[in-house]
Amino acid sequence: MKQDLDRLMEERGIDALTVTGTPKTSRDLYYLTGPVTVTGCRVVKKRGEAPVLITGSMERDEAAKSGLEVKTWNDFDVMKITREAKTPLEGSVKSFAKMCEVLGITGTVAFYGTGDIPYAYAFLDALSKEGSIKVHAEAYNSIFSEARMTKDNDEIDKIDSVSRGAQEVIGVVRDFLATCSDKGGKIVDPEGREVTIGRVKKMILNETKARGMLLDEAVIFAQGRDSGVPHSRGDDAATLVPGKTIVFDYCPQGAGPGYFADITRTWCLGFVPDEVREIYDQVLEIQLRVLDELKVGTPCAEYDKMTNEYFDEHGHPTPMKETGKTEGYVHSLGHGLGLNIHERPRVSMFSKTEELLAPGHVFTVEPGLYYPEHEIGVRIEDDVAVHEDGSIVNLTTFPKDILVELKS
Amino acid sequence: MKQDLDRLMEERGIDALTVTGTPKTSRDLYYLTGPVTVTGCRVVKKRGEAPVLITGSMERDEAAKSGLEVKTWNDFDVMKITREAKTPLEGSVKSFAKMCEVLGITGTVAFYGTGDIPYAYAFLDALSKEGSIKVHAEAYNSIFSEARMTKDNDEIDKIDSVSRGAQEVIGVVRDFLATCSDKGGKIVDPEGREVTIGRVKKMILNETKARGMLLDEAVIFAQGRDSGVPHSRGDDAATLVPGKTIVFDYCPQGAGPGYFADITRTWCLGFVPDEVREIYDQVLEIQLRVLDELKVGTPCAEYDKMTNEYFDEHGHPTPMKETGKTEGYVHSLGHGLGLNIHERPRVSMFSKTEELLAPGHVFTVEPGLYYPEHEIGVRIEDDVAVHEDGSIVNLTTFPKDILVELKS
Repeated sequence: MKQDLDRLMEERGIDALTVTGTPKTSRDLYYLTGPVTVTGCRVVKKRGEAPVLITGSMERDEAAKSGLEVKTWNDFDVMKITREAKTPLEGSVKSFAKMCEVLGITGTVAFYGTGDIPYAYAFLDALSKEGSIKVHAEAYNSIFSEARMTKDNDEIDKIDSVSRGAQEVIGVVRDFLATCSDKGGKIVDPEGREVTIGRVKKMILNETKARGMLLDEAVIFAQGRDSGVPHSRGDDAATLVPGKTIVFDYCPQGAGPGYFADITRTWCLGFVPDEVREIYDQVLEIQLRVLDELKVGTPCAEYDKMTNEYFDEHGHPTPMKETGKTEGYVHSLGHGLGLNIHERPRVSMFSKTEELLAPGHVFTVEPGLYYPEHEIGVRIEDDVAVHEDGSIVNLTTFPKDILVELKS
Repeated sequence: MKQDLDRLMEERGIDALTVTGTPKTSRDLYYLTGPVTVTGCRVVKKRGEAPVLITGSMERDEAAKSGLEVKTWNDFDVMKITREAKTPLEGSVKSFAKMCEVLGITGTVAFYGTGDIPYAYAFLDALSKEGSIKVHAEAYNSIFSEARMTKDNDEIDKIDSVSRGAQEVIGVVRDFLATCSDKGGKIVDPEGREVTIGRVKKMILNETKARGMLLDEAVIFAQGRDSGVPHSRGDDAATLVPGKTIVFDYCPQGAGPGYFADITRTWCLGFVPDEVREIYDQVLEIQLRVLDELKVGTPCAEYDKMTNEYFDEHGHPTPMKETGKTEGYVHSLGHGLGLNIHERPRVSMFSKTEELLAPGHVFTVEPGLYYPEHEIGVRIEDDVAVHEDGSIVNLTTFPKDILVELKS
């Protein structure tokens, strides 16, 4: 949680931290500023003190909406320093040093945010050599990823709210498909028009927007062979057909852009072939078993191991046995969910960090099996939250029937 | 232009380049891949060869839509290497080295893209120390910024198309305001309802979407004091009033997300106070003068200098005379426009790189004057393109009358 930042800074010997980017692209920045619209900014936080937001003077009104103390580059003579510098990089380094001087920042400074990769490297390398502060860069498991891994109840409510919206949309799509029928092997709507994936996706987009949510990631609505390639978005031009698996993986985001939900359902229209039914039942069985066994204090990796073992026992290829396969179980069981679609905790047996299930964790449980050559893909994904009191709640109550019956 | 990349690589001694991120967030990546939807990827291009797109095997179908050769991490044993590594960072460095080995990459490798700042630094620092390739990082004026600065006619057409759409939307808003009237100092619509800035912004958003364009950046529709703070977005709750300057700065983006337009008009509803008229006429005069004098081969900085001098002569504070002011002329004259709203060429007298106006340049010309304490802000912004044959075309033909007459 946000209040853990000072403790984490102390544990890691960080005297001050700074985050750059925009609140939209740098989620660590958004975590501190909330939804403000500034073209670019820097947040600086000394250990034990409140964050300060620094931006251009043209942006000062928007920046103030963050509720943080706002300073502008002018407070550090950035324009003057930049003009007098021999190179832009020298200007950046000198401007940063001046800011540290004015704000009284010394010692070890940790850098976060999202930005241009060559600039980040060249700037931090130069700053490191300049030597007035010590550069601290966390390649993995940053203090933000650590703090953000544990949500407070307000954050869980935000994810829950997006998740409810998401389930409404999934319901609208399901209800629409149930009004359709099979006409000579193609799905047609009540007016007899063929239903394409593109049309369903348009419906999903409209329903998402109508609920004030965003769809930053393209929705997955993939059928047959495409459903067997986990991140295939599906072919917009294709008409839906009966009896093929449809993987509908949907990650809407709350306004801000804020928190994500991430839900998957797999459907067959009209009938379910035996081969599909067998695979579906296995995916469902292991998902329900995992959901049932979730317990605070257990390593998250355990649940992925359970899933690998279950699928292995049932004769499917798994990453536990062999890497790089595109059939069977080809991903990990889940991932944390928050301001990013993928964040900590990692629900993977191959994670290098032991993450024990803990209050504040919000994560997906999404086993799947994929057989693209057989035109089969199955994934069932729920979002689970562990509240501060340790209670574990599956936020996703949408039914898991694979069969969507058609009108005859 | 894209075809310049090999020449630029040779000039800078780069044997191979690599770009990471997503096509949406890393515009250099989009420049090579076009609008594909992959969660994360790496493009590698050896000098003189076509780019290769590398992504997760789950994303292979989407990646193929780029038309580039696609490889997956499995082709470089990334999963195995990562599992066997002692730390994630070691895994990243070893995976990269393996990729270089398989693809035959040696010598100097340049890194581009957008990503996590601490990871970028830690990874490139470690790779640099590992020593199998030489890390090349361009903090400024990267070869992509150089190549992208010069648009081919197809790119100019794309910007022109967004610009036309933008001008239609500006026209819709202007026509709507012209149906309104002044009722006791407040603007009301024909039904007598007060017109808030929030309502106008909703109209702008809907009209943008209806034309298949995106509005990634929040639109600026700011009135009175807010119009005097260049990047203030305006107060959604405020009702429009007659006789105050309204700055409408609008940057829609083509689908993809692709190329931007960036247009500003300043309006007064009902009447124009003398003080505003005087300032407006000066901004318009210098804009028209600059547009008239644009000539291939002239340093772009010259036009900003002209503008500084003109405003200085007319008694306004300018950055040429003093930095850090929030009154008068507070920004530079313009900026290049393309896959980013702000790119090269820089139309600023303080640019450290001399950029001569050249065929392929697309940029804004947007002088402005700001007096927030007087509740006045004026900016007029057009988009100009220099075609391959050297002809200079102002893409923005929307009228520049400040007065929007109201219904009586």
